Amino acid sequence: MTYCVGLLLNQGMVLLSDTRTNAGLDNIATYRKTFLFEEPGERVIAILTAGSLSVTQTTIARLRDKIDDPEHGDEAPSIMTAPTMLAVAEVVGNTLASVRQDVDAKMSAAKVSTSASMIVAGQRKGGGPRMFLIYPEGNFIEATEDTPFLQIGEHKYGKPILDRVVTTETPLLDAQKAVLLSMDSTLRSNLSVGMPLDLTVIERDALKVTMQRRIEAGDEQFREMSEAWSQALRDGFSRISI
Amino acid sequence: MTYCVGLLLNQGMVLLSDTRTNAGLDNIATYRKTFLFEEPGERVIAILTAGSLSVTQTTIARLRDKIDDPEHGDEAPSIMTAPTMLAVAEVVGNTLASVRQDVDAKMSAAKVSTSASMIVAGQRKGGGPRMFLIYPEGNFIEATEDTPFLQIGEHKYGKPILDRVVTTETPLLDAQKAVLLSMDSTLRSNLSVGMPLDLTVIERDALKVTMQRRIEAGDEQFREMSEAWSQALRDGFSRISI
Repeated sequence: MTYCVGLLLNQGMVLLSDTRTNAGLDNIATYRKTFLFEEPGERVIAILTAGSLSVTQTTIARLRDKIDDPEHGDEAPSIMTAPTMLAVAEVVGNTLASVRQDVDAKMSAAKVSTSASMIVAGQRKGGGPRMFLIYPEGNFIEATEDTPFLQIGEHKYGKPILDRVVTTETPLLDAQKAVLLSMDSTLRSNLSVGMPLDLTVIERDALKVTMQRRIEAGDEQFREMSEAWSQALRDGFSRISI
Repeated sequence: MTYCVGLLLNQGMVLLSDTRTNAGLDNIATYRKTFLFEEPGERVIAILTAGSLSVTQTTIARLRDKIDDPEHGDEAPSIMTAPTMLAVAEVVGNTLASVRQDVDAKMSAAKVSTSASMIVAGQRKGGGPRMFLIYPEGNFIEATEDTPFLQIGEHKYGKPILDRVVTTETPLLDAQKAVLLSMDSTLRSNLSVGMPLDLTVIERDALKVTMQRRIEAGDEQFREMSEAWSQALRDGFSRISI
């Protein structure tokens, strides 16, 4: 399992992913699930992935191949040459759907189906920051002012905190706190979501990755924040009268 | 969907269920999902249900028929005559599994499968309070000191708060607060879980229902608690430094 979350705010975008993958409970590994593409001053794109590793890895590999060799394969642009972020989402969606078909064809004998979903966030020069959730079939939805966050993977445990504290007005620092606490609730409840974490911040109009940080399992700051949050919950709980 | 939760504590048991049922999004109704059986001084049993309404209603009806007419049907005891709480869980599990088979046989033409799960909590004279989660197949697990709560239905949104504040030492009043806040998080996130709520408290060794309360949609006390909790979360959130 996986948990990835992205916030689309007035000040920019904040993204967080875990790194745990598992094929059964006894085959656990660490894989990066945040992929960054940038041409500073021109465009910046972050892709977060959840689901079958064979599908997500191949999708990212094909997107990279197309960037390196735009003439290769079909007529479609690469994500670095697509004219708009909407077109970027379409390229990712089509690539994901096509990879999934290929993998499913191989798996059909075993009657197993593969699935993967992605968050695509970014900004190109001349456009605003946009964020999309790409479904396994390749179609997608976009984050809006009403729903300024998107989640993929094990999303339920970490949703209540986001529902309560995140609006488009949330400053970027608070937004980092919100996604980390949302991840913290998920880590506690689902073993198949695991450290380390990849945190990414893309400021509005920066057209580059503003901050990228890997938070390792023993990270002191994350541990302190997690404990302070538990304490705050317990204090708040004990103050409420019934 | 449904959310039911039961806590097994040193001081007794606290149970909460919602009442919303739906067959599609446009066919929503209110049905009680908490069923109480008591013979004061002898035994008290609470059954909370989740899943297909046709399965849970028939299961409860058969359990009631057996109580009214113990000679009817097979040799198995009724839940009011079964010698232990473990035997009660077995009776409920077997009845649930058998109803499910009957209903599935009717549904097989439509290739639809029905499913339901239950929380069975109670105490008989001479035994301690015990609480079981009955799976759709009729097998079950029991709440223990390590895991003093059981949930059925839409359980994920409301789990983080329970993980953080509930231990077997939790007093009954705090426990009521915990299940109500756990429900509050679920109500906010899943439309198919809805008010009113049924709250039940069974004190240890009371051998009767200590408290039973229906919390209606406009309940002022519940609304105040929900708002105080949101405020406490936001305050706690803003005090944490990153």
